[in-house]
Amino acid sequence: MAIVLGPHQYGKAENRVVRIYRDSPRHEIHDVNVSTALRGAFDPAHLVGDQSAVLPTDTQKQTAYAYAKEKGLTSIEPYGLELARHFVDDVEPVTGARIEIEEYAWERVVVDGTEHDFTFVRRGQEVRTAAVTVEGKGDAQRTWVVGGFKDLVLLKTTGSEFHDFLTDEYTLLEPTSDRIMATSLEAKWRFDSAALESAALESSAGFDWEGVYAGVKQTMVEVFATLHSLALQQTLYEMGKAVLERFPMIVELRMSAPNKHHFLYDLAPFGLKNRNEVFNADDRPYGLIQASVLRDDAPAAGAAWDVAGGFA
Amino acid sequence: MAIVLGPHQYGKAENRVVRIYRDSPRHEIHDVNVSTALRGAFDPAHLVGDQSAVLPTDTQKQTAYAYAKEKGLTSIEPYGLELARHFVDDVEPVTGARIEIEEYAWERVVVDGTEHDFTFVRRGQEVRTAAVTVEGKGDAQRTWVVGGFKDLVLLKTTGSEFHDFLTDEYTLLEPTSDRIMATSLEAKWRFDSAALESAALESSAGFDWEGVYAGVKQTMVEVFATLHSLALQQTLYEMGKAVLERFPMIVELRMSAPNKHHFLYDLAPFGLKNRNEVFNADDRPYGLIQASVLRDDAPAAGAAWDVAGGFA
Amino acid sequence: MAIVLGPHQYGKAENRVVRIYRDSPRHEIHDVNVSTALRGAFDPAHLVGDQSAVLPTDTQKQTAYAYAKEKGLTSIEPYGLELARHFVDDVEPVTGARIEIEEYAWERVVVDGTEHDFTFVRRGQEVRTAAVTVEGKGDAQRTWVVGGFKDLVLLKTTGSEFHDFLTDEYTLLEPTSDRIMATSLEAKWRFDSAALESAALESSAGFDWEGVYAGVKQTMVEVFATLHSLALQQTLYEMGKAVLERFPMIVELRMSAPNKHHFLYDLAPFGLKNRNEVFNADDRPYGLIQASVLRDDAPAAGAAWDVAGGFA
Amino acid sequence: MAIVLGPHQYGKAENRVVRIYRDSPRHEIHDVNVSTALRGAFDPAHLVGDQSAVLPTDTQKQTAYAYAKEKGLTSIEPYGLELARHFVDDVEPVTGARIEIEEYAWERVVVDGTEHDFTFVRRGQEVRTAAVTVEGKGDAQRTWVVGGFKDLVLLKTTGSEFHDFLTDEYTLLEPTSDRIMATSLEAKWRFDSAALESAALESSAGFDWEGVYAGVKQTMVEVFATLHSLALQQTLYEMGKAVLERFPMIVELRMSAPNKHHFLYDLAPFGLKNRNEVFNADDRPYGLIQASVLRDDAPAAGAAWDVAGGFA
Repeated sequence: MAIVLGPHQYGKAENRVVRIYRDSPRHEIHDVNVSTALRGAFDPAHLVGDQSAVLPTDTQKQTAYAYAKEKGLTSIEPYGLELARHFVDDVEPVTGARIEIEEYAWERVVVDGTEHDFTFVRRGQEVRTAAVTVEGKGDAQRTWVVGGFKDLVLLKTTGSEFHDFLTDEYTLLEPTSDRIMATSLEAKWRFDSAALESAALESSAGFDWEGVYAGVKQTMVEVFATLHSLALQQTLYEMGKAVLERFPMIVELRMSAPNKHHFLYDLAPFGLKNRNEVFNADDRPYGLIQASVLRDDAPAAGAAWDVAGGFA
Repeated sequence: MAIVLGPHQYGKAENRVVRIYRDSPRHEIHDVNVSTALRGAFDPAHLVGDQSAVLPTDTQKQTAYAYAKEKGLTSIEPYGLELARHFVDDVEPVTGARIEIEEYAWERVVVDGTEHDFTFVRRGQEVRTAAVTVEGKGDAQRTWVVGGFKDLVLLKTTGSEFHDFLTDEYTLLEPTSDRIMATSLEAKWRFDSAALESAALESSAGFDWEGVYAGVKQTMVEVFATLHSLALQQTLYEMGKAVLERFPMIVELRMSAPNKHHFLYDLAPFGLKNRNEVFNADDRPYGLIQASVLRDDAPAAGAAWDVAGGFA
Repeated sequence: MAIVLGPHQYGKAENRVVRIYRDSPRHEIHDVNVSTALRGAFDPAHLVGDQSAVLPTDTQKQTAYAYAKEKGLTSIEPYGLELARHFVDDVEPVTGARIEIEEYAWERVVVDGTEHDFTFVRRGQEVRTAAVTVEGKGDAQRTWVVGGFKDLVLLKTTGSEFHDFLTDEYTLLEPTSDRIMATSLEAKWRFDSAALESAALESSAGFDWEGVYAGVKQTMVEVFATLHSLALQQTLYEMGKAVLERFPMIVELRMSAPNKHHFLYDLAPFGLKNRNEVFNADDRPYGLIQASVLRDDAPAAGAAWDVAGGFA
Repeated sequence: MAIVLGPHQYGKAENRVVRIYRDSPRHEIHDVNVSTALRGAFDPAHLVGDQSAVLPTDTQKQTAYAYAKEKGLTSIEPYGLELARHFVDDVEPVTGARIEIEEYAWERVVVDGTEHDFTFVRRGQEVRTAAVTVEGKGDAQRTWVVGGFKDLVLLKTTGSEFHDFLTDEYTLLEPTSDRIMATSLEAKWRFDSAALESAALESSAGFDWEGVYAGVKQTMVEVFATLHSLALQQTLYEMGKAVLERFPMIVELRMSAPNKHHFLYDLAPFGLKNRNEVFNADDRPYGLIQASVLRDDAPAAGAAWDVAGGFA
């Protein structure tokens, strides 16, 4: 028996890059948090402290800022692709790179009914995310792109039931035919790499990352609103299914949805009727429903979902 | 020399009350975090553990939920007034009450271009706040109402300078005539109690709390956008002044504004020009500017600003 | 009626200064978060954007780091005093300064039963705090020092009762003669400025800040443990009283204590007895008890407790 | 092409169970945050909203509290095993369960030099963790146990170098032969299931979970302290290797270690020498090093590391 080094990666996490476009009086802002992780032939650094194959995490940071200017930073997915491909293609010991990005949305403030040219207010709603993974050199290179969002907090005040569930000796829950359903939705969708490449080839404008993002979000929100729900599981499945039906370049979608419990407050001791009007929004514990939806002919996921390399 | 009990208060903090109005198919939601604090003749509880004058914090919680139904919960200021007056008027040992409320805004989701009746998405922008203080019984009773918001994150990509400041032997900062100015604004405005009472008397609809809130916020945002700034101090002062000019029922406004530094990233080592295009959004430390603006004939502030009784 | 500038202050918040003493092989570490705030003749900055009296917040940051070397950083109170006096004494427009400091404690790791010379683990228990306020120039200068801590989480599994409280129509709480009492204690104690000066004069070693801190904390912990409690109010009062009795240089102590509720879990539906053995640690809401204890001949508090200038 | 349901799981997250043992005057406390997740034949819940196979998350919560009494809650690993096996063995549609637990450590307060019987202070140092996964029924059942901790903040003021690294056109970092090295360590170790079973059989006292936990932690701390480090990678590897050498029942260890940067502060502009004495503790970005160490004959990891099912 010997003790050996297993999987490892390293990088610079949470670079807070803000990119302003100010070529016209109407400025644009892109505000991101980008994390890089490199995989490759770094065994000597672990085994004997030899750094000769290790590109410093500080260099990865410098590159993230420099690329915001050199390559530009508009949609986060292609920015992530530029970074990932650079590390794998241009740094010899690097055999794989994963770039994870969060984007914070800003909207223009309105003055006298007109959008302002260079003043913004942070929207504060969901955080957009992307995870780009590139593995391999040259012709063997493979690429996965995952788009997504988190912290989209949705709530419906009716149109949600939960009953006829399995019971055992620890079951106290009462069934209900009308409850608040609320969640802070996280969704991640895997793009079909081949479809992305085709789209990019067909049009000089490339792929419409912004349109897909807006469309996926709106689709999910609409299903959440309009589906009469028998369970959060059902709602998630139908949300994911609708996305796959409308967006052919997406092959899989994963969702994580805390059931943010709103408990009907008992006002009977005070002689008051509570007809689903007063609730306590509880913190913990919360239900946590996680589900995925995919095409039955989806290509293998490969490293697409390997968010943190299983580390933490 | 003797050791004596000094100021004290107690209450129930962070009751997460959610109130749904569902009298028509178009539901309304009000989502608040309400904290109560009572002041009064509670010395025996401290000195000898005698609770006979102490209304439990659990009772304060029950009251907050019950009042959301009994008295209603639409605007947070009158809801806070109902609670504060109840504790002072109806609970004998209580001589003062302070109710602090945060409100989380929701907006309707849009389906096929139409606002949905009962599905909402959390806006996630600023948090609205209120602090109501009532002191004294009967004719001696005095009331203060403070409205406000926090976490309104504003940024302008130009139109902000900072130069000709005082220097000493520890000064390294370079002057600038064009920088990003960003803040996470907290503002609190003190209402003229007399004006509130008059407004309530003159109209059966009472006071337009929602209109004032929206107007104050919009006024501050507009000044932030349109004032060419020589310092965050100047911007704050002009924001506050504009509010007082437009809203006669507000007599004082206090602001706390972290200067969220966006440092121009040095791309010169990579042969790149950075014409205010790439920034690092830094976390800490941050400048912190705090200022107040008031009418020179404003009534005394009394207990209005006694946010936490000086305790923490 | 005119609109005027009210109270204002500005500074640099949350400078994360780490000071290592390495004059011997046994290194020492002091890890603090220091915030500065200056008060003075800064009206022109607000009124017309004139910065000529404004020492940049960046300069305040530089000074905090430089003083960690120039003046040293061992106990946080004298470090804060050095900074506050510097700004008031050496910067002409500054008439008052408030320095607030948090300190994060580290302890040496133990290797083979011996404390290591230069490796530390963060203790993670309470955070020590200090707030130093200096107002006025020359002979008119006044100084206040407040020591303290926060986030000291204490719990006793028995020895706590709560009953015979006031009830009204919203009271549902059942009395109890045995409950868990838990809190995350924040305490702040005001030193007698005259006593500090005398102590410093009498001994070349100056005042024993570390000894007082350890003693106050231990005193409070011991009273929490040994007092059979009829209410958290009583426990707080006795904790504060014991501190004042043992530490003559402290004239006032303020405490803020959330009642971290541990609710007995109802296991009866499962045929199980729960003899105060299984609890749910709830998040929100929580009781919040705040109280102060002082000497009846304590000097006036002046600006000592003016933590945030009433701003936020 | 059809759209199909992919992997899914559901459960109750963050149940805050506190278990007191009070059979003698010297009470014991175990304070945990337990999350359950069930996997199995829940497709109808997603596809058609049929809940007949779904044991409510509320029931999972009740079970977690009930088991703290019925089965006991001392070490978190066997408590997790009881819960996981119960769900898989006793609930027909459940084919797999994952139980994740965090434990918050308390230590006795000391009064007059003696540990108190029933008063505790939260230690606040690292959070202990466990993840138990059970898959399959009857003889086909497989079990994985992962122990661990997170938030163990370590720092050494010297004995750490970083130089001779790879450089490219974005590299600005200067090499150093003496720096602060600090991290907030997360570690997870996978037990050999066969070894656990043998140990349990050999002794009526079962397996010494507490001893292993303390030993692993101490081993890692000692290596961190005593190894002269050429890179955080090297330190992590040696820490993991030492654990595997000393604890035969552990077959793999994974670590995630942010490099908490302490930047030497430039005091030269003020005429001051900074001989590694004054640092700025920066927040973001941070290096992030992740590595694993394992035995070359370790059994396959199976579902052991499938922390969040790849969902979020």
